[in-house]
Amino acid sequence: MTDSPGGSGSRRRGRPPRTESAGTRDRILAAAREEFAERGYDKTSVRGIAKSAGVDSALVHHYFGTKEQVFEAAVEVAFAPALTVRDAVLAAPLDDVGERMTRVLFGLWENSVTRKPLLAIVRSAVNNDVAASVFRRMVTAQLMRRIAGEIDAPDAELRVELAAAQLVGIAMMRYVIRIEPIASADVEQVIARVAPVVQGHLTGP
Amino acid sequence: MTDSPGGSGSRRRGRPPRTESAGTRDRILAAAREEFAERGYDKTSVRGIAKSAGVDSALVHHYFGTKEQVFEAAVEVAFAPALTVRDAVLAAPLDDVGERMTRVLFGLWENSVTRKPLLAIVRSAVNNDVAASVFRRMVTAQLMRRIAGEIDAPDAELRVELAAAQLVGIAMMRYVIRIEPIASADVEQVIARVAPVVQGHLTGP
Repeated sequence: MTDSPGGSGSRRRGRPPRTESAGTRDRILAAAREEFAERGYDKTSVRGIAKSAGVDSALVHHYFGTKEQVFEAAVEVAFAPALTVRDAVLAAPLDDVGERMTRVLFGLWENSVTRKPLLAIVRSAVNNDVAASVFRRMVTAQLMRRIAGEIDAPDAELRVELAAAQLVGIAMMRYVIRIEPIASADVEQVIARVAPVVQGHLTGP
Repeated sequence: MTDSPGGSGSRRRGRPPRTESAGTRDRILAAAREEFAERGYDKTSVRGIAKSAGVDSALVHHYFGTKEQVFEAAVEVAFAPALTVRDAVLAAPLDDVGERMTRVLFGLWENSVTRKPLLAIVRSAVNNDVAASVFRRMVTAQLMRRIAGEIDAPDAELRVELAAAQLVGIAMMRYVIRIEPIASADVEQVIARVAPVVQGHLTGP
Protein backbone atom coordinates (compact mmCIF):
# COMPACT_ATOMS: atom_id res chain seq x y z
CA MET A 1 0.00 0.00 0.00
CA THR A 2 2.77 2.43 0.98
CA ASP A 3 4.95 2.73 -2.07
CA SER A 4 6.88 5.81 -1.02
CA PRO A 5 10.63 5.25 -0.49
CA GLY A 6 10.39 5.35 3.30
CA GLY A 7 7.18 3.27 3.52
CA SER A 8 6.93 -0.15 5.11
CA GLY A 9 6.24 -1.78 1.73
CA SER A 10 9.53 -0.81 0.11
CA ARG A 11 11.39 -1.38 3.34
CA ARG A 12 10.16 -4.93 3.39
CA ARG A 13 11.07 -5.53 -0.25
CA GLY A 14 14.48 -3.88 0.14
CA ARG A 15 15.52 -6.03 3.10
CA PRO A 16 17.81 -9.00 2.37
CA PRO A 17 15.66 -12.16 2.27
CA ARG A 18 17.20 -13.94 5.22
CA THR A 19 14.93 -16.75 6.41
CA GLU A 20 15.32 -15.69 10.01
CA SER A 21 14.25 -12.09 9.46
CA ALA A 22 11.36 -13.14 7.20
CA GLY A 23 10.20 -15.49 9.97
CA THR A 24 10.55 -12.78 12.58
CA ARG A 25 8.69 -10.26 10.48
CA ASP A 26 5.81 -12.70 9.95
CA ARG A 27 5.75 -13.55 13.63
CA ILE A 28 5.49 -9.87 14.51
CA LEU A 29 2.71 -9.39 11.96
CA ALA A 30 0.79 -12.38 13.30
CA ALA A 31 1.19 -11.07 16.85
CA ALA A 32 0.04 -7.62 15.70
CA ARG A 33 -3.09 -9.08 14.11
CA GLU A 34 -3.88 -10.98 17.32
CA GLU A 35 -3.33 -7.94 19.50
CA PHE A 36 -5.31 -5.53 17.32
CA ALA A 37 -8.14 -8.09 17.02
CA GLU A 38 -8.26 -8.74 20.76
CA ARG A 39 -7.78 -5.22 22.04
CA GLY A 40 -8.49 -2.82 19.21
CA TYR A 41 -6.13 -0.10 18.06
CA ASP A 42 -6.15 2.07 21.16
CA LYS A 43 -5.27 -0.58 23.68
CA THR A 44 -2.66 -2.28 21.53
CA SER A 45 0.93 -1.19 22.10
CA VAL A 46 4.12 -1.87 20.15
CA ARG A 47 5.54 -3.23 23.39
CA GLY A 48 2.63 -5.68 23.73
CA ILE A 49 3.04 -6.83 20.13
CA ALA A 50 6.78 -7.31 20.67
CA LYS A 51 6.19 -9.28 23.85
CA SER A 52 3.62 -11.54 22.23
CA ALA A 53 5.99 -12.13 19.27
CA GLY A 54 8.88 -12.82 21.65
CA VAL A 55 11.06 -10.01 20.30
CA ASP A 56 12.30 -6.64 21.47
CA SER A 57 10.14 -3.54 20.79
CA ALA A 58 13.05 -2.03 18.87
CA LEU A 59 12.75 -4.83 16.33
CA VAL A 60 9.07 -4.03 15.74
CA HIS A 61 9.99 -0.39 15.12
CA HIS A 62 12.86 -1.54 12.91
CA TYR A 63 10.62 -3.61 10.64
CA PHE A 64 7.51 -1.46 10.58
CA GLY A 65 8.03 1.97 12.13
CA THR A 66 5.25 3.45 14.25
CA LYS A 67 2.19 1.73 15.69
CA GLU A 68 0.12 3.21 12.86
CA GLN A 69 2.50 1.58 10.36
CA VAL A 70 2.31 -1.78 12.13
CA PHE A 71 -1.47 -1.47 11.96
CA GLU A 72 -1.33 -0.58 8.27
CA ALA A 73 0.84 -3.64 7.56
CA ALA A 74 -1.51 -5.89 9.55
CA VAL A 75 -4.53 -4.46 7.73
CA GLU A 76 -2.73 -4.91 4.42
CA VAL A 77 -2.47 -8.64 5.13
CA ALA A 78 -6.15 -8.72 6.04
CA PHE A 79 -6.80 -6.91 2.78
CA ALA A 80 -5.24 -9.60 0.62
CA PRO A 81 -8.48 -11.63 0.76
CA ALA A 82 -10.45 -8.43 0.20
CA LEU A 83 -8.62 -8.05 -3.08
CA THR A 84 -9.82 -11.56 -3.91
CA VAL A 85 -13.32 -10.23 -3.34
CA ARG A 86 -12.64 -7.36 -5.64
CA ASP A 87 -11.13 -9.50 -8.37
CA ALA A 88 -13.94 -12.05 -8.12
CA VAL A 89 -16.45 -9.22 -8.32
CA LEU A 90 -14.67 -7.63 -11.25
CA ALA A 91 -14.50 -10.98 -13.07
CA ALA A 92 -18.19 -11.78 -12.65
CA PRO A 93 -20.76 -10.94 -15.30
CA LEU A 94 -22.51 -7.77 -14.18
CA ASP A 95 -25.83 -9.45 -13.46
CA ASP A 96 -24.14 -11.97 -11.20
CA VAL A 97 -22.07 -9.47 -9.30
CA GLY A 98 -24.39 -9.23 -6.27
CA GLU A 99 -24.27 -12.92 -5.49
CA ARG A 100 -20.54 -13.11 -6.16
CA MET A 101 -19.76 -10.20 -3.85
CA THR A 102 -22.04 -11.62 -1.13
CA ARG A 103 -20.59 -15.13 -1.34
CA VAL A 104 -16.97 -14.06 -1.21
CA LEU A 105 -17.59 -11.79 1.76
CA PHE A 106 -19.46 -14.45 3.71
CA GLY A 107 -16.65 -16.84 2.83
CA LEU A 108 -14.16 -14.54 4.53
CA TRP A 109 -16.28 -14.12 7.64
CA GLU A 110 -17.16 -17.82 7.94
CA ASN A 111 -13.47 -18.78 7.78
CA SER A 112 -11.92 -18.57 11.25
CA VAL A 113 -8.50 -17.66 9.82
CA THR A 114 -9.70 -14.63 7.86
CA ARG A 115 -12.32 -13.62 10.41
CA LYS A 116 -9.76 -12.54 12.99
CA PRO A 117 -8.07 -9.80 10.95
CA LEU A 118 -11.50 -8.61 9.77
CA LEU A 119 -12.59 -8.30 13.38
CA ALA A 120 -9.38 -6.42 14.12
CA ILE A 121 -10.09 -3.93 11.38
CA VAL A 122 -13.72 -3.39 12.32
CA ARG A 123 -12.99 -3.00 16.04
CA SER A 124 -10.15 -0.59 15.44
CA ALA A 125 -11.83 1.47 12.73
CA VAL A 126 -14.90 1.94 14.91
CA ASN A 127 -12.92 3.15 17.90
CA ASN A 128 -9.96 5.05 16.65
CA ASP A 129 -9.63 7.88 14.16
CA VAL A 130 -6.17 6.87 12.94
CA ALA A 131 -7.37 3.32 12.31
CA ALA A 132 -10.55 4.64 10.68
CA SER A 133 -8.50 6.73 8.28
CA VAL A 134 -6.27 3.77 7.33
CA PHE A 135 -9.44 1.78 6.74
CA ARG A 136 -11.10 4.54 4.71
CA ARG A 137 -8.04 4.98 2.55
CA MET A 138 -7.70 1.28 1.74
CA VAL A 139 -11.39 0.53 1.32
CA THR A 140 -11.96 3.54 -0.87
CA ALA A 141 -8.92 3.15 -3.11
CA GLN A 142 -8.69 -0.65 -3.31
CA LEU A 143 -12.29 -1.72 -3.26
CA MET A 144 -15.01 0.86 -3.67
CA ARG A 145 -13.59 2.86 -6.54
CA ARG A 146 -12.43 -0.20 -8.46
CA ILE A 147 -15.78 -1.93 -8.25
CA ALA A 148 -17.58 1.32 -9.00
CA GLY A 149 -15.47 1.64 -12.15
CA GLU A 150 -17.27 -1.41 -13.54
CA ILE A 151 -20.71 0.07 -13.04
CA ASP A 152 -22.03 2.34 -15.71
CA ALA A 153 -24.04 4.81 -13.63
CA PRO A 154 -23.41 8.37 -12.48
CA ASP A 155 -23.87 7.33 -8.85
CA ALA A 156 -21.73 4.17 -9.14
CA GLU A 157 -19.72 4.85 -5.97
CA LEU A 158 -22.82 5.46 -3.88
CA ARG A 159 -24.34 2.24 -5.28
CA VAL A 160 -21.27 0.23 -4.28
CA GLU A 161 -21.36 1.72 -0.79
CA LEU A 162 -25.06 0.98 -0.29
CA ALA A 163 -24.38 -2.61 -1.33
CA ALA A 164 -21.37 -2.76 0.97
CA ALA A 165 -23.46 -1.28 3.79
CA GLN A 166 -25.89 -4.19 3.58
CA LEU A 167 -22.99 -6.63 3.89
CA VAL A 168 -21.22 -4.65 6.61
CA GLY A 169 -24.43 -4.48 8.65
CA ILE A 170 -24.97 -8.22 8.44
CA ALA A 171 -21.35 -8.86 9.40
CA MET A 172 -21.82 -6.58 12.41
CA MET A 173 -24.98 -8.32 13.58
CA ARG A 174 -23.96 -11.90 12.75
CA TYR A 175 -20.23 -11.98 13.53
CA VAL A 176 -19.38 -9.00 15.72
CA ILE A 177 -22.34 -8.40 18.06
CA ARG A 178 -23.95 -11.79 17.38
CA ILE A 179 -27.65 -11.05 17.57
CA GLU A 180 -30.00 -13.99 17.17
CA PRO A 181 -31.50 -15.39 15.01
CA ILE A 182 -29.22 -13.93 12.35
CA ALA A 183 -26.04 -15.07 14.14
CA SER A 184 -27.02 -18.73 13.83
CA ALA A 185 -29.07 -18.62 10.65
CA ASP A 186 -28.00 -20.93 7.84
CA VAL A 187 -25.50 -19.02 5.73
CA GLU A 188 -27.15 -20.11 2.47
CA GLN A 189 -30.47 -18.77 3.70
CA VAL A 190 -28.86 -15.42 4.48
CA ILE A 191 -27.04 -15.30 1.13
CA ALA A 192 -30.30 -16.05 -0.69
CA ARG A 193 -31.93 -13.05 1.01
CA VAL A 194 -29.04 -10.68 0.68
CA ALA A 195 -27.54 -11.30 -2.76
CA PRO A 196 -30.54 -9.87 -4.67
CA VAL A 197 -30.46 -6.76 -2.48
CA VAL A 198 -26.75 -6.27 -3.17
CA GLN A 199 -27.39 -6.80 -6.87
CA GLY A 200 -30.25 -4.30 -6.76
CA HIS A 201 -28.06 -1.63 -5.20
CA LEU A 202 -25.33 -2.18 -7.79
CA THR A 203 -27.26 -2.45 -11.02
CA GLY A 204 -30.94 -1.88 -10.19
CA PRO A 205 -33.02 1.00 -11.55
CA MET B 1 -34.88 -1.95 31.84
CA THR B 2 -33.78 -3.35 35.22
CA ASP B 3 -36.96 -3.84 37.14
CA SER B 4 -35.63 -6.12 39.86
CA PRO B 5 -35.75 -4.62 43.40
CA GLY B 6 -32.02 -3.92 43.44
CA GLY B 7 -31.83 -2.59 39.87
CA SER B 8 -30.97 0.94 38.93
CA GLY B 9 -34.49 1.53 37.58
CA SER B 10 -36.31 0.92 40.86
CA ARG B 11 -33.51 2.55 42.81
CA ARG B 12 -34.00 5.67 40.76
CA ARG B 13 -37.74 5.61 41.19
CA GLY B 14 -37.45 4.82 44.92
CA ARG B 15 -35.11 7.73 45.62
CA PRO B 16 -36.66 10.88 47.17
CA PRO B 17 -37.09 13.42 44.38
CA ARG B 18 -34.71 16.05 45.68
CA THR B 19 -33.79 18.50 42.94
CA GLU B 20 -30.13 18.32 43.83
CA SER B 21 -29.81 14.55 43.59
CA ALA B 22 -31.85 14.42 40.38
CA GLY B 23 -29.47 16.99 38.92
CA THR B 24 -26.45 15.04 40.10
CA ARG B 25 -27.77 11.80 38.70
CA ASP B 26 -28.42 13.39 35.31
CA ARG B 27 -24.99 14.98 35.33
CA ILE B 28 -23.38 11.60 36.02
CA LEU B 29 -25.43 10.02 33.24
CA ALA B 30 -24.46 12.76 30.80
CA ALA B 31 -20.80 12.35 31.76
CA ALA B 32 -21.11 8.57 31.37
CA ARG B 33 -22.54 8.98 27.86
CA GLU B 34 -19.69 11.32 26.92
CA GLU B 35 -17.05 9.00 28.31
CA PHE B 36 -18.48 5.82 26.79
CA ALA B 37 -18.90 7.60 23.43
CA GLU B 38 -15.36 9.00 23.46
CA ARG B 39 -13.50 6.02 24.82
CA GLY B 40 -15.69 2.96 24.47
CA TYR B 41 -16.60 0.61 27.29
CA ASP B 42 -13.16 -0.79 28.00
CA LYS B 43 -11.33 2.47 28.46
CA THR B 44 -14.09 4.18 30.42
CA SER B 45 -13.76 4.02 34.20
CA VAL B 46 -16.18 4.91 36.97
CA ARG B 47 -13.46 7.20 38.29
CA GLY B 48 -13.25 8.99 34.91
CA ILE B 49 -17.02 9.42 34.77
CA ALA B 50 -17.04 10.77 38.33
CA LYS B 51 -14.25 13.20 37.54
CA SER B 52 -15.95 14.48 34.42
CA ALA B 53 -19.24 14.91 36.34
CA GLY B 54 -17.40 16.69 39.16
CA VAL B 55 -18.44 14.18 41.82
CA ASP B 56 -16.81 11.47 43.89
CA SER B 57 -16.61 7.92 42.47
CA ALA B 58 -18.54 6.68 45.49
CA LEU B 59 -21.52 8.74 44.35
CA VAL B 60 -21.49 7.06 40.93
CA HIS B 61 -21.50 3.66 42.62
CA HIS B 62 -24.23 4.88 44.96
CA TYR B 63 -26.56 5.89 42.15
CA PHE B 64 -25.81 3.17 39.62
CA GLY B 65 -23.71 0.35 41.04
CA THR B 66 -21.02 -1.21 38.84
CA LYS B 67 -19.57 0.10 35.58
CA GLU B 68 -21.79 -2.36 33.70
CA GLN B 69 -24.82 -0.86 35.44
CA VAL B 70 -23.74 2.70 34.63
CA PHE B 71 -23.38 1.57 31.02
CA GLU B 72 -26.80 -0.05 31.07
CA ALA B 73 -28.35 3.17 32.41
CA ALA B 74 -26.57 5.25 29.77
CA VAL B 75 -27.70 2.88 27.03
CA GLU B 76 -31.21 2.95 28.43
CA VAL B 77 -31.28 6.70 27.88
CA ALA B 78 -29.96 6.21 24.36
CA PHE B 79 -32.69 3.65 23.90
CA ALA B 80 -35.50 6.06 24.65
CA PRO B 81 -35.36 7.39 21.07
CA ALA B 82 -35.03 3.82 19.82
CA LEU B 83 -38.37 3.11 21.45
CA THR B 84 -39.71 6.05 19.45
CA VAL B 85 -38.48 4.22 16.37
CA ARG B 86 -40.21 1.11 17.48
CA ASP B 87 -43.48 2.86 18.26
CA ALA B 88 -43.39 4.78 15.00
CA VAL B 89 -42.72 1.57 13.16
CA LEU B 90 -45.47 -0.26 15.00
CA ALA B 91 -47.92 2.58 14.31
CA ALA B 92 -47.20 2.72 10.57
CA PRO B 93 -49.30 0.83 8.05
CA LEU B 94 -47.38 -2.30 7.12
CA ASP B 95 -46.59 -1.19 3.58
CA ASP B 96 -45.11 2.07 4.86
CA VAL B 97 -43.02 0.48 7.58
CA GLY B 98 -39.73 0.46 5.61
CA GLU B 99 -39.72 4.18 4.99
CA ARG B 100 -40.86 4.94 8.53
CA MET B 101 -38.13 2.81 10.10
CA THR B 102 -35.49 4.31 7.80
CA ARG B 103 -36.58 7.91 8.42
CA VAL B 104 -36.69 7.62 12.19
CA LEU B 105 -33.27 5.99 12.32
CA PHE B 106 -31.66 8.58 10.07
CA GLY B 107 -33.34 11.23 12.21
CA LEU B 108 -31.55 9.88 15.28
CA TRP B 109 -28.17 9.74 13.55
CA GLU B 110 -28.50 13.17 11.92
CA ASN B 111 -29.28 14.78 15.27
CA SER B 112 -26.06 15.63 17.10
CA VAL B 113 -27.71 15.12 20.51
CA THR B 114 -28.87 11.57 19.85
CA ARG B 115 -25.86 10.64 17.72
CA LYS B 116 -23.46 10.67 20.64
CA PRO B 117 -25.14 7.94 22.72
CA LEU B 118 -25.64 5.87 19.56
CA LEU B 119 -21.92 6.13 18.86
CA ALA B 120 -21.22 5.13 22.46
CA ILE B 121 -23.33 2.03 22.09
CA VAL B 122 -21.85 0.99 18.75
CA ARG B 123 -18.25 1.55 19.84
CA SER B 124 -18.71 -0.30 23.09
CA ALA B 125 -20.75 -3.19 21.70
CA VAL B 126 -18.16 -3.78 18.97
CA ASN B 127 -15.26 -3.90 21.40
CA ASN B 128 -16.49 -5.38 24.62
CA ASP B 129 -18.40 -8.56 25.35
CA VAL B 130 -20.20 -7.17 28.40
CA ALA B 131 -21.36 -4.16 26.39
CA ALA B 132 -22.30 -6.40 23.47
CA SER B 133 -24.46 -8.51 25.72
CA VAL B 134 -26.24 -5.44 27.17
CA PHE B 135 -26.82 -4.30 23.60
CA ARG B 136 -28.04 -7.71 22.41
CA ARG B 137 -30.44 -7.98 25.32
CA MET B 138 -31.97 -4.55 24.75
CA VAL B 139 -32.09 -4.66 20.98
CA THR B 140 -33.55 -8.13 20.89
CA ALA B 141 -36.17 -7.66 23.59
CA GLN B 142 -37.14 -4.03 22.97
CA LEU B 143 -36.84 -3.68 19.22
CA MET B 144 -36.43 -6.78 17.11
CA ARG B 145 -38.99 -9.05 18.71
CA ARG B 146 -41.58 -6.31 19.02
CA ILE B 147 -41.33 -5.27 15.39
CA ALA B 148 -41.19 -8.90 14.29
CA GLY B 149 -44.45 -9.46 16.16
CA GLU B 150 -46.20 -7.19 13.64
CA ILE B 151 -45.00 -9.18 10.66
CA ASP B 152 -46.97 -12.20 9.64
CA ALA B 153 -44.22 -14.51 8.41
CA PRO B 154 -42.49 -17.54 9.91
CA ASP B 155 -39.11 -15.85 9.51
CA ALA B 156 -40.25 -12.47 10.87
CA GLU B 157 -37.30 -12.03 13.23
CA LEU B 158 -34.76 -12.76 10.52
CA ARG B 159 -36.55 -10.28 8.24
CA VAL B 160 -36.35 -7.54 10.85
CA GLU B 161 -32.67 -8.23 11.37
CA LEU B 162 -31.85 -8.14 7.65
CA ALA B 163 -33.65 -4.79 7.46
CA ALA B 164 -31.82 -3.56 10.54
CA ALA B 165 -28.52 -4.77 9.05
CA GLN B 166 -29.00 -2.51 6.03
CA LEU B 167 -29.53 0.46 8.35
CA VAL B 168 -26.71 -0.51 10.73
CA GLY B 169 -24.29 -0.85 7.81
CA ILE B 170 -25.16 2.58 6.46
CA ALA B 171 -24.81 4.10 9.92
CA MET B 172 -21.37 2.49 10.20
CA MET B 173 -20.18 3.79 6.86
CA ARG B 174 -21.82 7.22 7.00
CA TYR B 175 -21.54 8.20 10.66
CA VAL B 176 -18.93 6.00 12.32
CA ILE B 177 -16.17 5.35 9.76
CA ARG B 178 -17.30 8.14 7.39
CA ILE B 179 -16.51 6.73 3.98
CA GLU B 180 -17.18 9.01 1.01
CA PRO B 181 -19.36 9.57 -0.92
CA ILE B 182 -21.97 8.05 1.42
CA ALA B 183 -20.82 10.15 4.40
CA SER B 184 -21.71 13.41 2.62
CA ALA B 185 -24.54 12.19 0.39
CA ASP B 186 -27.85 14.01 0.71
CA VAL B 187 -29.84 12.22 3.40
CA GLU B 188 -33.02 12.23 1.30
CA GLN B 189 -31.15 10.57 -1.55
CA VAL B 190 -29.94 7.84 0.79
CA ILE B 191 -33.39 7.36 2.32
CA ALA B 192 -34.91 7.05 -1.15
CA ARG B 193 -32.48 4.23 -1.96
CA VAL B 194 -32.69 2.44 1.35
CA ALA B 195 -36.35 2.59 2.39
CA PRO B 196 -37.55 0.22 -0.38
CA VAL B 197 -34.82 -2.26 0.55
CA VAL B 198 -35.86 -2.17 4.21
CA GLN B 199 -39.49 -2.59 3.16
CA GLY B 200 -38.53 -5.51 0.94
CA HIS B 201 -36.78 -7.30 3.77
CA LEU B 202 -39.72 -6.79 6.10
CA THR B 203 -42.69 -7.60 3.90
CA GLY B 204 -41.32 -8.72 0.51
CA PRO B 205 -41.79 -12.17 -0.97
